[in-house]
Parts: sequence; structure tokens; C-alpha cells
Amino acid sequence: MTKSGVPVVGMAGGGQLARMTQQAAIGLGVSLRVLAGSPDDSAAKVVSDVRVGDDRSLDDLVAFAEGCDVVTFDHEHVPGPNIRKLESSGVPCRPGAAALAHAQDKLVMRERLTAMGVPCPDYVHLHRSAPLAMLETFASKHGFPLVLKAARGGYDGKGVWVLDALDRAAVELVHELLAGDVDLMVEEHVGFTRELAALVARSPYGQGAAYPIVETVQEGGICTEVISPAPGLSKDTAVEAQHLALTVAAELDVVGLLAVELFETERGLIVNELAMRPHNSGHWTIEGARTSQFEQHLRAVLDLPLGSTEPTARYTVMANVLGGDDPDVHSRYFHVMAHDPAVKVHLYGKESRPGRKIGHVTALGDDLADLRERARHAADYLRWGTAMSEREERR
Amino acid sequence: MTKSGVPVVGMAGGGQLARMTQQAAIGLGVSLRVLAGSPDDSAAKVVSDVRVGDDRSLDDLVAFAEGCDVVTFDHEHVPGPNIRKLESSGVPCRPGAAALAHAQDKLVMRERLTAMGVPCPDYVHLHRSAPLAMLETFASKHGFPLVLKAARGGYDGKGVWVLDALDRAAVELVHELLAGDVDLMVEEHVGFTRELAALVARSPYGQGAAYPIVETVQEGGICTEVISPAPGLSKDTAVEAQHLALTVAAELDVVGLLAVELFETERGLIVNELAMRPHNSGHWTIEGARTSQFEQHLRAVLDLPLGSTEPTARYTVMANVLGGDDPDVHSRYFHVMAHDPAVKVHLYGKESRPGRKIGHVTALGDDLADLRERARHAADYLRWGTAMSEREERR
Repeated sequence: MTKSGVPVVGMAGGGQLARMTQQAAIGLGVSLRVLAGSPDDSAAKVVSDVRVGDDRSLDDLVAFAEGCDVVTFDHEHVPGPNIRKLESSGVPCRPGAAALAHAQDKLVMRERLTAMGVPCPDYVHLHRSAPLAMLETFASKHGFPLVLKAARGGYDGKGVWVLDALDRAAVELVHELLAGDVDLMVEEHVGFTRELAALVARSPYGQGAAYPIVETVQEGGICTEVISPAPGLSKDTAVEAQHLALTVAAELDVVGLLAVELFETERGLIVNELAMRPHNSGHWTIEGARTSQFEQHLRAVLDLPLGSTEPTARYTVMANVLGGDDPDVHSRYFHVMAHDPAVKVHLYGKESRPGRKIGHVTALGDDLADLRERARHAADYLRWGTAMSEREERR
Repeated sequence: MTKSGVPVVGMAGGGQLARMTQQAAIGLGVSLRVLAGSPDDSAAKVVSDVRVGDDRSLDDLVAFAEGCDVVTFDHEHVPGPNIRKLESSGVPCRPGAAALAHAQDKLVMRERLTAMGVPCPDYVHLHRSAPLAMLETFASKHGFPLVLKAARGGYDGKGVWVLDALDRAAVELVHELLAGDVDLMVEEHVGFTRELAALVARSPYGQGAAYPIVETVQEGGICTEVISPAPGLSKDTAVEAQHLALTVAAELDVVGLLAVELFETERGLIVNELAMRPHNSGHWTIEGARTSQFEQHLRAVLDLPLGSTEPTARYTVMANVLGGDDPDVHSRYFHVMAHDPAVKVHLYGKESRPGRKIGHVTALGDDLADLRERARHAADYLRWGTAMSEREERR
């Protein structure tokens, strides 16, 4: 806390999640400190209290935490043992190391959720002694395709491979990954209708708050679009998904946000992944909910009463802006803003590279088809300098 | 512009308007640079690119503007001659010195608006040669009370005095002010039903955008509450007010925001004051309009297409949070947030002093009486640690 009673929240990681948290921190009058890898990081460009360092280094983390009322995270890559050391030195870390382990390691997550009775894909840890034999046994049960996953370090489709057969390429991949000291697991390939996400917040006091369940649309392992609420989702399923996420948050003692990525399948909801931070599937809340996920995360980690998750419009559609060939995104603002004065554009101040998430756009209103078209148009135009429909016409 | 094509907007002044502009700049991916008097200024605490200096000094202003694509202002106190020098050196200043003069000097404003045929209170400049004789002549025409104003430098009721008679105290006040090198004017005391404000934006391209007309409630010269839209205002009067503000913006060549403070009277709308920047009467737009006034100001000064001014709720009520006796505002968050999870709190990171504007709260919805009660409760509680109604009960 500063001398004037203003709480100081330290966030390890300088990505766009920390950047958007700064917008919420400014509103609440909370002081946000960021541990960034470089002064050019997305959040480092917009925060006055930046510490440049390596968030995997204990020394840098400890120096960063000095004077923070609470430490939180914009990603899962801070080593658990370092967080535990910080905790035992008396610095509140939210979420704590014990909870965060379930978002850092897919094996830890699967074991715990399965033990809790939460529906997950069937999976097996590929022991180093006999990985291929284990894979073969698992395949004989489920058939191909199967999903090979690195237990740690993946994001945006990285660290996940779909295997269509145990062919030479698959064998080489497994050997290569194990040589790289990666723990591997294999999961059944779940046939899903669509992907959903449940976003909830939990405070140390134990208060929980659930946002509407959203549909997430992925292309090539990257989320491209989020629709809130998930169209046509039955009320029962929505409540079930919210309940599931709140239960997981409470059981795992999560503090802050918890995003649960779900498959909607013929046999019900199945958990795909967990994240314990503001999440791409919740960017729509900046305009689309009374309390944004970023403000909610700050309220939760500061043990303040949580804010209303009430939607501000019937539908909100968020589309991610990916980098295209021409990095000068700002020159494309003119068309996008003139074409649609009501679409909200968010850019992350990140260098544009093809396929990289560099921003998002949000459209809100009553007509879902119109909103999807508008969000897509804006996101496509910011990426390519032309709308996708026009690109297709030219072909 | 930075190497990556990111526009750099320089804002002279480090107050809460620059602070809230930073929230919008983060969203747009625009780089905001602030010229602040101190690193402890409201905006300086939340902006990475802060230049500490005196915004009345030409040297500091010139150094600050180096590398900015455009310079704009969070107050009216940058001397016109300095802005003109900056302009002639090729730095776009928006609004420009010629326009800004009308917000800096009430005499310049009254002369121009009256010449344009815009309804203003009757007024006269008190010449230094015979100020009291002029005042007496003006009083014989309008009777008392009259309003004495310093032509420059006033805000929040400062620089404005209501004279009930030309008594000894009034004579002394006039002499004292004139000795202090202040230009004085006197205006008729307009009997108004209520106060309104018209907020519009204008871009260099000439595009204009008008927000709904709001009612502003003042106590002791300080705005305490803003209601959008002004309840019960006829559509004709609302359109007239918007038209008036857009006309003034165009005639005066304003770029950026223009707030026109209006009296609603039996003889129609009468202009009270002008401001050419984000304005307290527009804070409600952060949640209550599709495009906040802060984003709109950035879009206008960057000559981007303006955003939709569509309201996001039927009614939005904003109440200013003034400093009370106990400066530890954050300790009062618990009650306010638990009591009303949907009220939005904004604190400016300013040291709390009795009566000082240190934040605001916003409530949105359908039931105006409920929204006013909720906004008032939150603002009162943040100020006093108790709701005003409870304070009154205890008396």
C-alpha cells in the first residue's frame, strides 16, 4: 500500500492482459506494477511503475514484489516453487501456487478434476520408460485421432498435436519432445458440437461471481471469435457450466479469475483447459458486462466485493485482430471507424507479425448475425486492409 | 508518430482528464504523453511517457511537443501566445490557439457568441478607467443580484462572485481584483430553471458528433451530479442545444471536444460557459455512451472518424466524489462495492482534501430515481464513510 492508502497490485508479465488490467486499475485508483521482460512489452508501454526483469527468476520476482500488497499473474509461466517462496515470505500471491499448478500443468489439472468427478476427456500420462507402448494401449481403447499434449508451457494451440496414426512422424515427434524434457500426455479426441467458456471470479473471502457462458470459435488452435451469451444454449446447460466453474474455483482455492474452456458434446460438457487470469474469452466484458473481467480480477485479488456480471447488451461479439502482412495497423483505422462508428477497437501496442494476436474488436446489440458480420469485418480489415468477403470476391 | 506508426498525442496538463484519456489511449493503442507539473499528478501516476514541467513555460511546452503528432490540453491555462508559437513551428495544436481563446477568456467568448447571435446573458466589460460607474450603469438596467466574473483563470465556481448590492464589500472586491491585474466583467443574473450541458466533438475534417443533452446539478459552484439525458427535456430543445453546440464548434473552428454549459430559462437556452476538452459533464460517457468522451477527443484530435455517441442505457447518472475529512477513500470501497455491485467507481489518484473532486461514480439503468439514489449513496459514502441520509438521521 502506498502512504495514501492506495493498494499496489503487482502483475507478473507485461502482455496485453496486464495492459488491459491497467485500464481497470486507473478507474479504481489502484496502483498497478508490472514485471515485464522488456520496456517494449504491451503493458510496459502504458504503466508508469514498470520493473524490467525475468519473471522466471526468483531474484527478479522477489525484488518486484517488494512493496506490493498482492502479486498476481498475466500468464502461467512463473515457476511454482518461486511463487511458493514468495508466499512463505509473507507476500500474498493470488492465485496461490497450489491453485495455479492446475493451470500450469495439464496433468495436475486432469488428475485433480477427474478425482473431483468433473467430466474431462480420458487421458494418460506417457511415462518416459514406455511412451509408445502406452500410446498404443490408449489408442487401442479410443482409436485415432488422438490428442498429444505437452503437460506444461502451451498456449494458443502450441503444445498440442493431433495424431491421426502412430506413424513414423508421430513416433519421431514423441521422441523429440521427450528428449526436450517435456512431460507428455495423450487424450481422446473429443467430438464436440462447439466450444464454450465459463468465466468466474472468486475472492479470498469466498465470494464467487459468474459471467454468462460464451461460445468461442477457434481457427488453427487460435480463438478468433467469442459470442456472449453462447447462442441457443439451454438455461440448464448454462447454469451447469457456471456451477462447474464456481465449484472448480472453490475446490482449487482459486483467487482472481478462473476461465474454464469447455467442449459441448453429445455426452454433456467436458473440460478442456483452465486459466487463472483474465482470459481471451472474457475480453467482451470490457464493454459487454457491467464489470469487466480486468476490474473483476483486481477486485478479487484485493479481496474487494465482486462487481456485477450483468450483460450490458443482448449480445456481445468479440473478434481477435491477428497480424497480417502490413504491420501499419493504425493506417487502417480510418476505414474501420468510418465504416462502423459503434465498433470498439482495442490494440495492444504489440509489433504486428502474421498470425499474432495484436488486438480485438467488440460489437454489441440485438442482431447477432449483424454483430458477427461487423466484428469480423473490422477484425479482417485491421488485419488485411480489406474485408475477407472482398478478398474472396477478388479470387 | 513512433517508428511503428503509432500516433503520439501530447496532452498538456496532468489532471484527471488526462488520466481518463490514458484509459482511452490504451484501448486505441495510441501513445499518450503528458506534460505534468509533478510526478504525483493524477495522470502522471498512470502514464509511462510523462514530462515534468511547467505548461505555462514556452520552453517546457516546446520540449514536450517534440515528437508529438498533435498537442492537446486537459485545461485552459496554457498561454495562447505559446500555443501560437508552437503552431507556427508546425506542431498541430488541437484545439488551436484561436479557438481556445474562447474557452480561456470569457470576454472573448461573450463578444464572439453575441456577435454570432448565440443567446448569452447581457454583460459588460468593466473598464479599468471607471469600473464602478460601469457597474452602476449596468445595475440600473438589470438590478441586483449581478454576477461579477474574472475574464480568465476561473473554474469550479472560482473567479465568479454574485453581488447582491454595490455595497462596501463589493467595491473593495472590485478594487482588489483590478489591483491583481484581472480583467473583470459583470453579467446579468439569469433566472434559470436548471443547468444543461451540450457536449460535441469536431474533427479537422469537419465531422461533428453530438452527445445527448445532460442536466448538471451544481452545489456551491461545483458540479455534483450529471443526468443523461436531461429528464423531461423536449426533443426540440435537445436538438436546439445540440445544434447550438455544433454551430459554435464549427464557427470557432474547435477541434476535439466542446462542452457548452447552458441555462434553461423561460426565454430559452442561454450559454453560460465553454470548455474545449473532456468535461466533467461528460464523465458519464465512459459507461453510458458507445464512445467515451475521452476516446472521442483522441479520435477528433487525430482526425479519425468520430465514434457513435449512442447511449448504452436509458439513463446514466454520474455523481462527483468530493474529498471529506478522512483521506483514506480506499477503506470505504468495501461498503460501496458490497452495497451496490453495479455502481462504477472512478478514483483519480489525487490526494483527498475537503471539497476537492477526487473521483466520480456512475450508475446506469431504467429507473432514474433509483439511479440517482444509488449514485448519491456511493458518492456520499466515499466522501464521508456514511450515506448522507444516515448523516441526516443522526442529527
